[in-house]
Amino acid sequence: MKSNLTAVAAALLSATMSTSALAQEVETERHTLSLETISEGLNHPWGIAFLPSGDMLVTERSGTLNIITQEGQKTPIQGTPEVVAKSQGGLLDVNIDPDYADNGWVYISYSEKDPKGGNGNSTAVMRGKIDGDKWTQGEVIFRQAPKYESNAHFGSRLVFSPEGHLFITLGERYSRMQDAQTLDNHHGKIVRIWPDGSIPKDNPFVGNDDALDEIWSYGHRNVQGAAIHPDTGELWTIEHGPQGGDEVNIPKAGKNYGWPTITYGEDYGGGEIGIGTHKEGMEQPFYYWLPSIATAGSIFYTGDKFPKWKGDLLVTALRGQTIARLDLEEGRVLHEERMLEDATSFRIRDIEQGPEGFLYILTDADSGQLIKLSPVK
Amino acid sequence: MKSNLTAVAAALLSATMSTSALAQEVETERHTLSLETISEGLNHPWGIAFLPSGDMLVTERSGTLNIITQEGQKTPIQGTPEVVAKSQGGLLDVNIDPDYADNGWVYISYSEKDPKGGNGNSTAVMRGKIDGDKWTQGEVIFRQAPKYESNAHFGSRLVFSPEGHLFITLGERYSRMQDAQTLDNHHGKIVRIWPDGSIPKDNPFVGNDDALDEIWSYGHRNVQGAAIHPDTGELWTIEHGPQGGDEVNIPKAGKNYGWPTITYGEDYGGGEIGIGTHKEGMEQPFYYWLPSIATAGSIFYTGDKFPKWKGDLLVTALRGQTIARLDLEEGRVLHEERMLEDATSFRIRDIEQGPEGFLYILTDADSGQLIKLSPVK
Repeated sequence: MKSNLTAVAAALLSATMSTSALAQEVETERHTLSLETISEGLNHPWGIAFLPSGDMLVTERSGTLNIITQEGQKTPIQGTPEVVAKSQGGLLDVNIDPDYADNGWVYISYSEKDPKGGNGNSTAVMRGKIDGDKWTQGEVIFRQAPKYESNAHFGSRLVFSPEGHLFITLGERYSRMQDAQTLDNHHGKIVRIWPDGSIPKDNPFVGNDDALDEIWSYGHRNVQGAAIHPDTGELWTIEHGPQGGDEVNIPKAGKNYGWPTITYGEDYGGGEIGIGTHKEGMEQPFYYWLPSIATAGSIFYTGDKFPKWKGDLLVTALRGQTIARLDLEEGRVLHEERMLEDATSFRIRDIEQGPEGFLYILTDADSGQLIKLSPVK
Repeated sequence: MKSNLTAVAAALLSATMSTSALAQEVETERHTLSLETISEGLNHPWGIAFLPSGDMLVTERSGTLNIITQEGQKTPIQGTPEVVAKSQGGLLDVNIDPDYADNGWVYISYSEKDPKGGNGNSTAVMRGKIDGDKWTQGEVIFRQAPKYESNAHFGSRLVFSPEGHLFITLGERYSRMQDAQTLDNHHGKIVRIWPDGSIPKDNPFVGNDDALDEIWSYGHRNVQGAAIHPDTGELWTIEHGPQGGDEVNIPKAGKNYGWPTITYGEDYGGGEIGIGTHKEGMEQPFYYWLPSIATAGSIFYTGDKFPKWKGDLLVTALRGQTIARLDLEEGRVLHEERMLEDATSFRIRDIEQGPEGFLYILTDADSGQLIKLSPVK
């Protein structure tokens, strides 16, 4: 219903609108792209999710959830939860239920203030439904514990496994980095729950009284990107590192990814962190960037519009102002390309593949854009 | 005897010499290096090999084989074979026998003119012994077939497997690139022989009447770098690609590495080569560089002087004027660093690790240098 109404509204509007920005062409190693601004004036947009109709859900960090049509018609949704919109916090990722067509659930992650009063906050995940331009039936299905007074390192991507688990990637709140090594909290963890918030019985620490049952893996810093590998079904994550040391990981159940004990990065300003790069019992990343490009969102490309990128891991970067393309082959990186780096100058927060195989990115700025990438050749 | 005499001469000389160049410090991600010129005025030096004494054998492409001491005392060896010193051809690599201490054999690769007359040339490998400043007992143990009139793509590194085989990496002579896909010639091949030139009975094409028995792997372009992995004993090779598409390969017996049918590069000037990047029955590279850095020599670092590089693959580049450091972990590239790139401006032809763990590089120029890399921290 919503989609139909939105489509009608968009069609009416597009007949009278002028395109907001001219398409720009950018060459890359394997394809030449056309970049077209679909929507602009978005306040630090953070996450994109596609509805079956081809309309997009797009979050703005300051707290607004929008439906945006392919023609750029934007409808803010009313009644989404209050967020702590300070520094890195606010309304963050959005995703739809794997059975959305049947159940209509939409999931959002956001920095939530302590519901008991207090000055603390942490990442929460709520699911709800969208009825016209209203957020309804909202229910919090996960709260990162403990609440803590910090405006940094919230995570927090939402991805579903092929079996229907919801993975939530969480930050360590920066000044609580040592918590990433202990299991009695959700700082610097990836958690795995069912979409209703219940805990899968085969989670690795279920039955361990000293560990929280939601934890899937630990020793993370600030995981802002996540994607499910299209062939293996495994979770791949993109961890925003310290100065140097952004990482790709393939987090396995119960494993320790080392932060802040081992890292390839160094502290902002140049100090050493931890004991080095390797330690028994701690996992190595799959790949790392040094100097840091400030990684953010990520997908595996599986469409037909960019056939020479099929199977590649695309990772967006903030400071790096690039989409890093990792050409993968049999479990290794064959080659990395930094796309757009010289051709554009925007921090890129997220990337998604649309149902037709086009790509969509969000630029991170006070007045950010939603940009569509199409192949020229 | 030779070494002792050379050392005495060097000691006498160093007392009266001034250092030819001041040490320069260069920062890299993991170590700060001091670069010290040991010898200069070398005409396109190509290969380095260490003698047990710590003295080095260094080739100049124009035809001279030198012994150079750690103090920079240079002794040209008389009586080495005539070479076709045109364009990329000339005196190329040098290595010593794994049993050098017992047998004294030294191996050199070079572009040899057709001994039967004709205008053709190709890569040959000779072994001989050094007696004072004389090359003696020279015997050709391998000749690339056919001889062909070209001054490009000779290969030709010489490395020994742990079992004592000699691998010789060969180019496809540029205008004969299609030959890399057929087995009746040595163009674009890696060959494996015993040090006396005889053919190992378990070479992959022994018994195949349509293939040359020396061939180990095929479908190569111009393999100028080779190293044996210190743990697995496997041959790793560095293939100088077309415009884009320099490759690391781990050539396996009898396998086809695809050139010129598949490649990640393109022709100089931009034309397409072959059919794309993948084909059934052809191997993918382990890693590739695009744009090309123009790869040349390579080693695995195994010493103690640069502990944070232990196990890394170091690859020198000509146009790229860099040492690419590949941080390897469990069969994958974790990270690539381009070292020296911004700090120096020389084409780097070869790299070797000395017996004490210091590194030595050759710069490719009419007046090239032998430079020692030491750790500052």
